[in-house]
Amino acid sequence: MRRVLVTTDRIGLEELAGLLRHADVVKGWKLDEGGIQAVLPEVEAAILLGWPPYFTRENLERMVRLRFVQTMSVGVNQIRFQDLPRRVMVCSNAGAYSTAVGEHAWGLLLAAAKWIALTDAAIKQEQGAFDQFRAGAKDTLVLKGGTMGIIGYGGIGRAVARFAAAFGMNVVAFGRGSRREKGVRLYRGRSGLDKVLRLSDAVLISLPLTKLTEGLIGSRELGIMKKNAVLVNVARGDIVHQRALYEHLKSNPSFRYATDVWWFKEGKETLETEFSIKDLPNFVGTPHTSGPAGVASGEPQRAVVLNTIRYLRGLKPRNIVNRTEYAE
Amino acid sequence: MRRVLVTTDRIGLEELAGLLRHADVVKGWKLDEGGIQAVLPEVEAAILLGWPPYFTRENLERMVRLRFVQTMSVGVNQIRFQDLPRRVMVCSNAGAYSTAVGEHAWGLLLAAAKWIALTDAAIKQEQGAFDQFRAGAKDTLVLKGGTMGIIGYGGIGRAVARFAAAFGMNVVAFGRGSRREKGVRLYRGRSGLDKVLRLSDAVLISLPLTKLTEGLIGSRELGIMKKNAVLVNVARGDIVHQRALYEHLKSNPSFRYATDVWWFKEGKETLETEFSIKDLPNFVGTPHTSGPAGVASGEPQRAVVLNTIRYLRGLKPRNIVNRTEYAE
Repeated sequence: MRRVLVTTDRIGLEELAGLLRHADVVKGWKLDEGGIQAVLPEVEAAILLGWPPYFTRENLERMVRLRFVQTMSVGVNQIRFQDLPRRVMVCSNAGAYSTAVGEHAWGLLLAAAKWIALTDAAIKQEQGAFDQFRAGAKDTLVLKGGTMGIIGYGGIGRAVARFAAAFGMNVVAFGRGSRREKGVRLYRGRSGLDKVLRLSDAVLISLPLTKLTEGLIGSRELGIMKKNAVLVNVARGDIVHQRALYEHLKSNPSFRYATDVWWFKEGKETLETEFSIKDLPNFVGTPHTSGPAGVASGEPQRAVVLNTIRYLRGLKPRNIVNRTEYAE
Repeated sequence: MRRVLVTTDRIGLEELAGLLRHADVVKGWKLDEGGIQAVLPEVEAAILLGWPPYFTRENLERMVRLRFVQTMSVGVNQIRFQDLPRRVMVCSNAGAYSTAVGEHAWGLLLAAAKWIALTDAAIKQEQGAFDQFRAGAKDTLVLKGGTMGIIGYGGIGRAVARFAAAFGMNVVAFGRGSRREKGVRLYRGRSGLDKVLRLSDAVLISLPLTKLTEGLIGSRELGIMKKNAVLVNVARGDIVHQRALYEHLKSNPSFRYATDVWWFKEGKETLETEFSIKDLPNFVGTPHTSGPAGVASGEPQRAVVLNTIRYLRGLKPRNIVNRTEYAE
């Protein structure tokens, strides 16, 4: 019998049921160290949330049947590609969180554009008067008639493009896909990225963190954006250069950064920042809550099970990761 | 020459230019007490932002030619109807802020639904870790597939209905208009209001404050709403009963209230509340900034000038207020 290792208890029994018709399901979170060691050589496919501590280089060498890894997350930057044999196909869960993350992204955009988080906090802390807080809410951005720029035009990007259209915005996008959608102008390459940044009143970052995108938004890119633009990040913190962002926010008080994702430190996302960027009034941050909200909907769980079944049935899985884009 | 008194300098010269072809424009903010006294008996129409201090009962008695009052605001609850002769037609500026206020309302909804204001403040104050803040962000509301209820289906309500449709929500509305719009189910009367409150995952209050709507949302109405619903108010604070809301928020931590408008105290909107409602984590408040953002767009100014011209040309003005709905 073929064996699929599921390393997270976030996938319910109902969702796993579909998998049972095609393979034996090993519930990793129920096994002790001995059980894990016994089963690893038999595992052909693995469904991961994060990187399991027992996926060490030594254990991976013993997993001689492993051919397929499916992540619950959209991003795969947590995968230790350098320890994973070339024969293993890695699939991301792109698209499965588009609704939850897209909605969260739009909330971050409006919270910054309308200074909602800032004035809510000011009212609660200072108990002051109207005029003072209104003065702090200058440069409120009206979205209608403005331009929305989307950096990375996948599932989340397309969801946000729909919201932007409903708000009466023009939509421009930077991406490498060949899709063209009604009303959305797609740009490519370095000059395309610059074009989107220059044109937009609000910019969404929704592309994966790879060797190519790490630090993609640095001081040059921030510098060509509009002075009162709002930059929203729901992808990965490290796509934006932290020092460059800190300096840009400090010297451009009408420019706003709103993020659900944080910079990595020693391989782990953390709310601790290198610069005191959280103290700036034009910084809005949520603790990577957009994804967990998606998990609550069950959509990502259904998607990983379906994609693993595609692999088991010999069909081409969706969202196969191009490993050359990640450090090995 | 017919005379129009403009009491606010928020209307620019460009916008006033259109008015000059039909009447003499008196800039109230440029006159001293003597100048005001001299001009009042000649004023036929007045454009107001708020209620001018010199519109006392005595002065209004001397304004024998006054026939038309146009407010810059959508709400007209600041008008002293009891001092204003019956012959004076009062027009609100309904619709002129729909874009700015609708966008702000959607921002408030998402800030509460996704706990954006709460977690942003928690991160900035406590410098804590991910898991703690994520636990605080339980009950995140995914809008797609849910139901949006709109109490008061005017310009702002219709703008928000469009946003809700783009987010994949069903839309139900409570209103007295006869309009029916594609995809929006309209309900009327007390039972209609209850229906909308019961069905909805998110509810927008966007109707005027009148004798009929003061305290419209009390403990009974809050009690029939879903336990994890989000209630958004961009109309007037006093449509919601403060004590009932405070008690409901305290005993239902997943229920959220997000507001741009505040309760009146001694005839004036104030951020001071009777109950310590601002300390509750499920309360989000902005300092009535949605309107000023609209003024920045110039839309309300253009609308009041156009409507005053309609009056001067003998056409029926828009947004004539039914005075019997306001305390006299």
